[in-house]
Amino acid sequence: MNKPLILRALGLVLLCEAGAMLPSLGIALYFYEKAFMAFAFSIVALTLIGLPLSRNLVTNSDVGYREGFMIAAISWILLALFGALPFIISGAIPGFINAFFEAMSGLTTTGASVLKDIESLPKSILFWRSVTHWLGGMGIIVLTLALIPSLKIAGLKLFRAEVTGPDKSKVLPRVTQTSRELYKLYTIITVTEIVALKIAGLSWFDSFIHTFGSVATGGFSNYNSSVAALNNPAAEYIIIFFMFICGMNFTLHYYALRGNFGPLWRDPEIKLYLAVTLFACLFISINLITIMDYQIGSALRQSAFQTVSILTTTGFATADYTLWPTFSQGVIFLLMFIGGCAGSTSGGIKVVRYLILAKSSFRQVAKLTHPKAVIPVRLGRSVVPDELVENVQTFFFLYFGLLFLSTLIITAMGVDLLSALSAVAACLGNIGPGFGIVGPVSNFSAIPEAGKMVLAICMLVGRLEIYTILVFLSPRIWRA
Amino acid sequence: MNKPLILRALGLVLLCEAGAMLPSLGIALYFYEKAFMAFAFSIVALTLIGLPLSRNLVTNSDVGYREGFMIAAISWILLALFGALPFIISGAIPGFINAFFEAMSGLTTTGASVLKDIESLPKSILFWRSVTHWLGGMGIIVLTLALIPSLKIAGLKLFRAEVTGPDKSKVLPRVTQTSRELYKLYTIITVTEIVALKIAGLSWFDSFIHTFGSVATGGFSNYNSSVAALNNPAAEYIIIFFMFICGMNFTLHYYALRGNFGPLWRDPEIKLYLAVTLFACLFISINLITIMDYQIGSALRQSAFQTVSILTTTGFATADYTLWPTFSQGVIFLLMFIGGCAGSTSGGIKVVRYLILAKSSFRQVAKLTHPKAVIPVRLGRSVVPDELVENVQTFFFLYFGLLFLSTLIITAMGVDLLSALSAVAACLGNIGPGFGIVGPVSNFSAIPEAGKMVLAICMLVGRLEIYTILVFLSPRIWRA
Repeated sequence: MNKPLILRALGLVLLCEAGAMLPSLGIALYFYEKAFMAFAFSIVALTLIGLPLSRNLVTNSDVGYREGFMIAAISWILLALFGALPFIISGAIPGFINAFFEAMSGLTTTGASVLKDIESLPKSILFWRSVTHWLGGMGIIVLTLALIPSLKIAGLKLFRAEVTGPDKSKVLPRVTQTSRELYKLYTIITVTEIVALKIAGLSWFDSFIHTFGSVATGGFSNYNSSVAALNNPAAEYIIIFFMFICGMNFTLHYYALRGNFGPLWRDPEIKLYLAVTLFACLFISINLITIMDYQIGSALRQSAFQTVSILTTTGFATADYTLWPTFSQGVIFLLMFIGGCAGSTSGGIKVVRYLILAKSSFRQVAKLTHPKAVIPVRLGRSVVPDELVENVQTFFFLYFGLLFLSTLIITAMGVDLLSALSAVAACLGNIGPGFGIVGPVSNFSAIPEAGKMVLAICMLVGRLEIYTILVFLSPRIWRA
Repeated sequence: MNKPLILRALGLVLLCEAGAMLPSLGIALYFYEKAFMAFAFSIVALTLIGLPLSRNLVTNSDVGYREGFMIAAISWILLALFGALPFIISGAIPGFINAFFEAMSGLTTTGASVLKDIESLPKSILFWRSVTHWLGGMGIIVLTLALIPSLKIAGLKLFRAEVTGPDKSKVLPRVTQTSRELYKLYTIITVTEIVALKIAGLSWFDSFIHTFGSVATGGFSNYNSSVAALNNPAAEYIIIFFMFICGMNFTLHYYALRGNFGPLWRDPEIKLYLAVTLFACLFISINLITIMDYQIGSALRQSAFQTVSILTTTGFATADYTLWPTFSQGVIFLLMFIGGCAGSTSGGIKVVRYLILAKSSFRQVAKLTHPKAVIPVRLGRSVVPDELVENVQTFFFLYFGLLFLSTLIITAMGVDLLSALSAVAACLGNIGPGFGIVGPVSNFSAIPEAGKMVLAICMLVGRLEIYTILVFLSPRIWRA
């Protein structure tokens, strides 16, 4: 294992976090907030630790999958630990576990909050809370798209599948170049949304906060009632649009911005993603109109917002879907287990995995009637290697296995079954709100401390897609 | 496709059902019940249809997988349709859908009931209701163990895996012989339990009813409050024992009764099955003792009964677990997704599938650190072929896919999320009771008619293990 390289990378990650705190420090200064000291101290601490680490002499620039897994897992944990510092020092979020939960929720772009009264927090703290989203969203783009290269098969940017292959040495230059391009793209989308929300009538502060929440598909708002508090349909449509866009594979945007729309039109994942969104909107709208006498316009807007928010694993809310008819609740519940597209900032199982699972199921049934037939699983023009099919199938099992085991742990703390199940689903899928006591107008404050730690781990495992964590925990990787 | 053979088999199945109605006819006569006419008519109808079909001239005795799938799927549907006749004609269960639901629930050994007041029913009808369990249990043993032969790999009696191989011609004699042995075994277990329950103090009638419910892992009782009404701890322990035994692979009993205990001790599935049972009992007992101040003896008996009842997908109840602490509810909820062993009368996903899923997950993680390693999935002494691993993984995906989609349909009928989810899980897993409005002291009467049909289909799909139904619905099989 290339230890100096890992330490250097972790050092750089910490310095990035220090840099990301600077705007919050500025806001604290501007508004004369006491949290200023908290940010100053955190930045100093991050720099004192990050700087020497980043100076590690790297004699060997080989980055393999071990190093990748290591950097990913440790980075997120360190970022959350240090990211919680301003919350703790400023006293904005009392208790280490609450602060760590909130920071992890931000960095994993989950958006689940332990705060009962968000609006009472200092502006600088609210800003930092949302910046963690943006940072996490950026991190996940590097992790899935750049650190793990070889974008050979369009639409198949699934974790691990890309780590194989003999040309490990070529990783580093490609990482640097690809990530630079994607950062640019991510920044362009961010700036566009901020400006759009400002034009729609939001304050600069609200525009920044809700932009960070949507481009990272995170979901932190600075209002207790989330986006509903804005009371601004135009802003809602803008947020719907950007959540949807950021739930798509970023490489497709990259090509599209260069005038190459081919990959976008051809991508089978996008078609299913769009279909799921449209059907969910349609079903919920009809349900709201027929059962709850909603106006058509309002039904469409509400269903579109909630559908896109949950499907992309953002978690913003303009309505309390736990008060909707049971069918609409069922649709939302189902969406919680889908997630956005691979290579996006969204979490969850991801649409492309369902495509592969569905196609391999067809193959399985075909094999039962024609045992000797060799039937490849296809995705668009390319054949999905059997190894990847198994990877996806195992992923599905592990996801649900973890979901059920974590639910069991949460019920052991006295949380009712539906709340526990949906809380875990919301954290593992990096969504945010669930059902029952963790509904969209509620928060995670009622979950006991130990439960919050379990859920924070679920967020991390969800964000790094299970395998990273399992490899990180496997003795093999530590041996070399 | 061998049409004459299929028709002949279906004819024999109908004649079997006619024969199975005779005891109920006798009971109706003995107690002077009006239901007598209903049974007489049903038996005549079954004979008039079954007899000519069974006389079909079979010139070619080739049975392939197509014929197997066909016979299995059509048999269960026909048995349920004709099995509902006595309920409809006697007026005991009003409405075709209710009667069909109850018959399907019996034949698939699910044990979910639409009846609000079971005790008001004629004895002959109650008896028939429980006989359907026994018949279904017998059917499933032939289906998984005899119709699909080659018991080469101990513990791997999973559907389909055995249908492959070139020696289709050898199927028939082996089917006949194996099924005869297993019928004998099933009958021995049944008689033993009836006698044991009688000795424990139950009436002959109660002994028969609760034996049918336990050996078939069905769960129909003749009391509204299920086994709790017996108020007989000895009987409870006997029922626990037989439910547990019947949730085990019957081939292991077959060997054990011949003095060959090797397969039993070596079987990895049994070890996990036992471990799950013990841990679930332990967790629930501790939970009941610490939170609800249960006596140790009572806590152990109640937890053992409910654990074994749900794990083996029986569905008998001696307590309302929806009133237990949330953690115990969580354990019960988890057990609903496990099921008994392959080759038993139980339903659900089955323990051996989890073994294969867990082992293939380990392999997947190992492959991530050693991409070129070839790692076989082992089960005891034998290697699980990759084809079977994929079969099991796909099964898991299809099971949960069907679970979520059916839940969505049930929520569309105004049923709340937890009740809908657990109702589908209880029917798809052939368990019986769930949570919410379909809890163990409740019933399925509150589910709308259309929902009952969906749930009846779930029972069938669960009993025939998804693939049978998918193959049955695939155009390929109808073409030949």
